[in-house]
Amino acid sequence: MMTTFQPPERLLLGPGPTNVSPRVLEALSRPTIGHLDPEFLRMMDELRTLLQYVFRTRNPVTFVVSGPGTAGMEAAVVNLVEPGDKVVVCKNGYFGERLQAMVERCGGQVVPVEFPWGRAVDPQKVEDTLKAHPDTRVVACVHAETSTGALSDVKTLAQVAHRYGALILVDAVTSLGGVPVEVDAWDLDVVYSGSQKCLSCVPGLAPVTVNARAMEVIRRRRTPVQSWFMDITLLTAYWHGETRRAYHHTAPVNALYALHEALRLIQEEGLEAVWARHHRVYEMFRPAVEALGLAYLTPEEERVPHLNVLQVPEGVDEAVLRRRLLTDFGIEIGGGLGRLAGQVWRIGLMGVNAHPRPALYALYALEQVLKQR
Amino acid sequence: MMTTFQPPERLLLGPGPTNVSPRVLEALSRPTIGHLDPEFLRMMDELRTLLQYVFRTRNPVTFVVSGPGTAGMEAAVVNLVEPGDKVVVCKNGYFGERLQAMVERCGGQVVPVEFPWGRAVDPQKVEDTLKAHPDTRVVACVHAETSTGALSDVKTLAQVAHRYGALILVDAVTSLGGVPVEVDAWDLDVVYSGSQKCLSCVPGLAPVTVNARAMEVIRRRRTPVQSWFMDITLLTAYWHGETRRAYHHTAPVNALYALHEALRLIQEEGLEAVWARHHRVYEMFRPAVEALGLAYLTPEEERVPHLNVLQVPEGVDEAVLRRRLLTDFGIEIGGGLGRLAGQVWRIGLMGVNAHPRPALYALYALEQVLKQR
Repeated sequence: MMTTFQPPERLLLGPGPTNVSPRVLEALSRPTIGHLDPEFLRMMDELRTLLQYVFRTRNPVTFVVSGPGTAGMEAAVVNLVEPGDKVVVCKNGYFGERLQAMVERCGGQVVPVEFPWGRAVDPQKVEDTLKAHPDTRVVACVHAETSTGALSDVKTLAQVAHRYGALILVDAVTSLGGVPVEVDAWDLDVVYSGSQKCLSCVPGLAPVTVNARAMEVIRRRRTPVQSWFMDITLLTAYWHGETRRAYHHTAPVNALYALHEALRLIQEEGLEAVWARHHRVYEMFRPAVEALGLAYLTPEEERVPHLNVLQVPEGVDEAVLRRRLLTDFGIEIGGGLGRLAGQVWRIGLMGVNAHPRPALYALYALEQVLKQR
Repeated sequence: MMTTFQPPERLLLGPGPTNVSPRVLEALSRPTIGHLDPEFLRMMDELRTLLQYVFRTRNPVTFVVSGPGTAGMEAAVVNLVEPGDKVVVCKNGYFGERLQAMVERCGGQVVPVEFPWGRAVDPQKVEDTLKAHPDTRVVACVHAETSTGALSDVKTLAQVAHRYGALILVDAVTSLGGVPVEVDAWDLDVVYSGSQKCLSCVPGLAPVTVNARAMEVIRRRRTPVQSWFMDITLLTAYWHGETRRAYHHTAPVNALYALHEALRLIQEEGLEAVWARHHRVYEMFRPAVEALGLAYLTPEEERVPHLNVLQVPEGVDEAVLRRRLLTDFGIEIGGGLGRLAGQVWRIGLMGVNAHPRPALYALYALEQVLKQR
């Protein structure tokens, strides 16, 4: 017989998941009800309102994909891209590569625009690419590149895309709730995120918002969306059915309770106050971590404030040090992804961990393990 | 400000989700840890062992898709079917139709075999179809058709498929844990299920198992799997990586704790005892519900014992009656899906609700509302 699984106590300072508030965990464990229960549908309506609040949008098509951020990414891509469509993919890290892979798997013609890993996307280079490819349908980019900690200017990228008649598809997995993501003010067409980063909810849900311009493109598709599970026209019949809600799939009922509660926490504090808190903790963490001799991968003006991507010092076995943080201090931090494997550490101070206490404890633990090597 | 969502007390006797044991809800609410934490990976290994136990298989490729049963269905289809592949889809209800839609969306050439809704799939008719289509690659069928309550003989269907060189793809969403699903003994190639039916876990997870024959077909694909998120070769590098686990997506950590606990409950009781319990409760429920004047849609020898699909009596507004069960008795039952909308009720006695107490209360409530009309 197996024993029950009791997770060890961890301070989650990797690139996500982050720790989850006890209030959210308690909401998660409330009794399951049916996904078509009138009370549940009412909760989903509230959830939409809360999502509109954090996305800063009035888009009626604002909902949750019943899967992790990666499913949100795939949902965005497969609904927007048809076989043969030209898609400019901005690649400044691992998740740009993943976007490219997904566009290719649905038959899109990728025009990659490459940037050094650790730098933001340069809108000028994207504009030059669009000039050379005026038949581009979509520009896809990552707002906060989780692999490098680089923050790109998606407001300007949206202007550039629209100037050339293309839609903008934005990955806001690591940015939503940590820094401004102004869906309406910046005129972003399709934006997806994840529940387990700055929203500090359990992993497994992907908030998505789609504006009228993108919905029009989706409605006029010549071919069906290749994924039945992720087809937005079917999903919205469940999330936003006007007369009755059409069954599509069984929603992850308990996880949606948790997201509702996590967003309520943000609403209580105020979204702008939450952004400011993430930034304050970064301002406190940065000089201290630099004083330990660690350097950021990304220039200061291009940084995601709540995801500190630091270069591993010469001669350090980074995996050994990460393991020591985990076993001796109960702290999880992230290693490098893809071509940055072994070269960087990723320290997230997101959601409930965007707070001086975990930041100070992380600095203390880092100092100890760096001293011991 | 929104208030927190407190779900009403419900007895979930629809086609799923079913009620969830307090032990499972408590496990769900344990603190989140990282999806690459060594302790979490150890839990995933245990989860695989538990899944092999309920699937009655030794398949090493036994894992969980991070989405609802519908995502499990799509994962099975997109990995197995390539554009142009001929797929015989057995259609005896709503979920057979869904299978057809998914096969078509990945370019498969569907040969539908139609059966009356409410009847099992007839293996002879499938064999005749295979004789006429000897180039069929896959036979897809639903073990327990959730829309009609019909149970098909997938053991015989597997033999028929294999006799003609085709693989068998089985939907076990509503059967797993309620009736025997003998993956190895019946030589089923790809089988998927859902967490929220007889496993009595929260909705949002899809257990999947794939045997060596199917993995060989997947490895020899001429084209990439159209879904990056559901690509089994990428997923297994996370679930079963031999040397190191490769990051693919952020697993729904807490939901997996819950599934681990739900499967532990089944292991404690014994899988065969759980099947027997589902059957005993049906044996008790059937004569009593028939005594209320309600007739089953499906002949007795073709019935899913834990999903009672009953014909709505003439002149009854079934939605009004269902609403009264919900508001006056706190009982959720299911209505008809697709072409059976308005014509049947679906009463599930699954998982923790495969017990005399909810069955008796449902009979009492049904009697009351039928009397009042």
